[in-house]
Amino acid sequence: MKVHALAAYAPGEPLRPFEYEIGAVSGFDCVIRVQSCGLCHSDIHVVDNDWGGATFPVVPGHEAVGEVVELGPGVTHLKIGDRVGVGWQSGACLGCRDCLRGNEQMCDANQATILHQYGGFGDYMTVDSRFAFPIPDGLASAAAGPLLCAGITVYSGLRHAGMRGGQEIGVIGIGGLGHLAVQFAAKLGNRVTVFTTSPEKAEYAARLGAAEAVIVGRDGSPPQKPSRPLDIIIDTVASGKDYNAYLNCLDSDGVFNLVGIGNDPIPLSVFAFQDKRRRIMGSPIGSRSEMIEMLGLAARYGIVPQIETFAFERANDAVQHVRDNKVRYRAVLLMD
Amino acid sequence: MKVHALAAYAPGEPLRPFEYEIGAVSGFDCVIRVQSCGLCHSDIHVVDNDWGGATFPVVPGHEAVGEVVELGPGVTHLKIGDRVGVGWQSGACLGCRDCLRGNEQMCDANQATILHQYGGFGDYMTVDSRFAFPIPDGLASAAAGPLLCAGITVYSGLRHAGMRGGQEIGVIGIGGLGHLAVQFAAKLGNRVTVFTTSPEKAEYAARLGAAEAVIVGRDGSPPQKPSRPLDIIIDTVASGKDYNAYLNCLDSDGVFNLVGIGNDPIPLSVFAFQDKRRRIMGSPIGSRSEMIEMLGLAARYGIVPQIETFAFERANDAVQHVRDNKVRYRAVLLMD
Repeated sequence: MKVHALAAYAPGEPLRPFEYEIGAVSGFDCVIRVQSCGLCHSDIHVVDNDWGGATFPVVPGHEAVGEVVELGPGVTHLKIGDRVGVGWQSGACLGCRDCLRGNEQMCDANQATILHQYGGFGDYMTVDSRFAFPIPDGLASAAAGPLLCAGITVYSGLRHAGMRGGQEIGVIGIGGLGHLAVQFAAKLGNRVTVFTTSPEKAEYAARLGAAEAVIVGRDGSPPQKPSRPLDIIIDTVASGKDYNAYLNCLDSDGVFNLVGIGNDPIPLSVFAFQDKRRRIMGSPIGSRSEMIEMLGLAARYGIVPQIETFAFERANDAVQHVRDNKVRYRAVLLMD
Repeated sequence: MKVHALAAYAPGEPLRPFEYEIGAVSGFDCVIRVQSCGLCHSDIHVVDNDWGGATFPVVPGHEAVGEVVELGPGVTHLKIGDRVGVGWQSGACLGCRDCLRGNEQMCDANQATILHQYGGFGDYMTVDSRFAFPIPDGLASAAAGPLLCAGITVYSGLRHAGMRGGQEIGVIGIGGLGHLAVQFAAKLGNRVTVFTTSPEKAEYAARLGAAEAVIVGRDGSPPQKPSRPLDIIIDTVASGKDYNAYLNCLDSDGVFNLVGIGNDPIPLSVFAFQDKRRRIMGSPIGSRSEMIEMLGLAARYGIVPQIETFAFERANDAVQHVRDNKVRYRAVLLMD
């Protein structure tokens, strides 16, 4: 089967047509006819080879949703015609301690979809079916895409920071991740405070369920304390900020979880966290079991990303839109 | 009642005789005839007024053990003749959220014994009985003292870092706190790895139950990775170190707990903790319920500090010994 994809042929280059062949489908693999695929800033980091490790041509796309059209002989949990999604991760050893604990995303041999294979920017893609997740009926394909990366990252992050309902939860940054974090936190029964540089985004967050907003400067200056101490802060913004001031917004035993990735050092003062026994953690995407749980909750509680859709042929416009930080709040390519 | 104590009359001064009067005992207060009192580095910090907030004359001593000789009318859980101990904390509001959660040590109104009253370096002391803890019969008074500050700090720190037995636990620093941390971790069923600059201390830690030692440089250079990933690292050394390298010694979901206090910033890299969902926390001393639990376990499992005893009159020798970092591993004054 010939795949009509879009690829960057070298770091930083625009996407251009790229064709490749999918051969006989073996083992646990399956082939998906891609209906839509989100565009995450990480796609651009890989296109630009910011993190190293990219093999060109790179076919981006790790928020892909489509229909199963072929199954390898080992696949038992999917059937032809199932609607499935593929996220950031498409492989793990499934035998190490992390994998056996149900934490495939922490496996040393974890494989990122767009670093290890061709991604979802094409009419078809092949993927290990064990990393293809059935999409509940209640979720539209285009909207489901961003849940597979941005959604799982904030959902898992909130859960591992201890979200259980009835809590005060802070969300730093209202973007692709943050606007989903607000919804997961608010719709699962918590009071949400957002930290954003933008009054417009604060208003939007309120419509998504946030109860309070703190407007912060772009210069990393300390945030004003919200009206109540927070049990959890989830930080979706990777850039430098006054971490100690945010820690001081936490209640005793509060947890600050970094889910964004940044190169800046994080200079902590023991006085910001020791006396109230606060914790700082980070968490990477989420596990397969959390993915299934998250998709089910998103369908049940109407947790959907706000997306801007682009026809497949306009992929480079979408890329530029993301590069310009103009997207509200996730760009999605439509293949159908 | 006249108390014959030792006090620093001004910051940094040697201890000199100081007499004060205990009047009628009211409310929840009790009077203790002090038998012995540990000397912690924090006493010296307060004598030197390193942290501010000290009121001179300062009577040090917050690891005091003695016999109850007088009780205020409100006291119900102690009787005359009981042997009790007093630690770092001697007051809290007992009504705020932290207190109601059983975390009196995190109360905003928490009172440090030697900052808010005269401490244990005297023949008698008075204290709020709600912060006087019965000492189990199996523990000698002089040995029980250091448990009341160093002991509770590492015990609570290990518990809140998730110690439950059967784990790999790292201890940074073999001093007053560290040599107790090794015992609590090892004797409650964990495999212990110590990080120390001193081969002599590594050998001593092995005798206390440590299974493995990593010798680290005094220059803060990164530690060699121990043979197994650690579930918990408890850091009893406040000074600068390569925190990211220690975080990389942790297993997935591992916890690094700072129980020492230092002014140095802690420069973290997100790459040291996010991909394996590690956590950094700090914890302050421990709660009253943990104190009782800890003393009971110390008695049951023979967890005792190694002490060097000094006659009361030789208190300034003890102070100098601690200032010179020569004490192995806790100095204790004997009043009897």
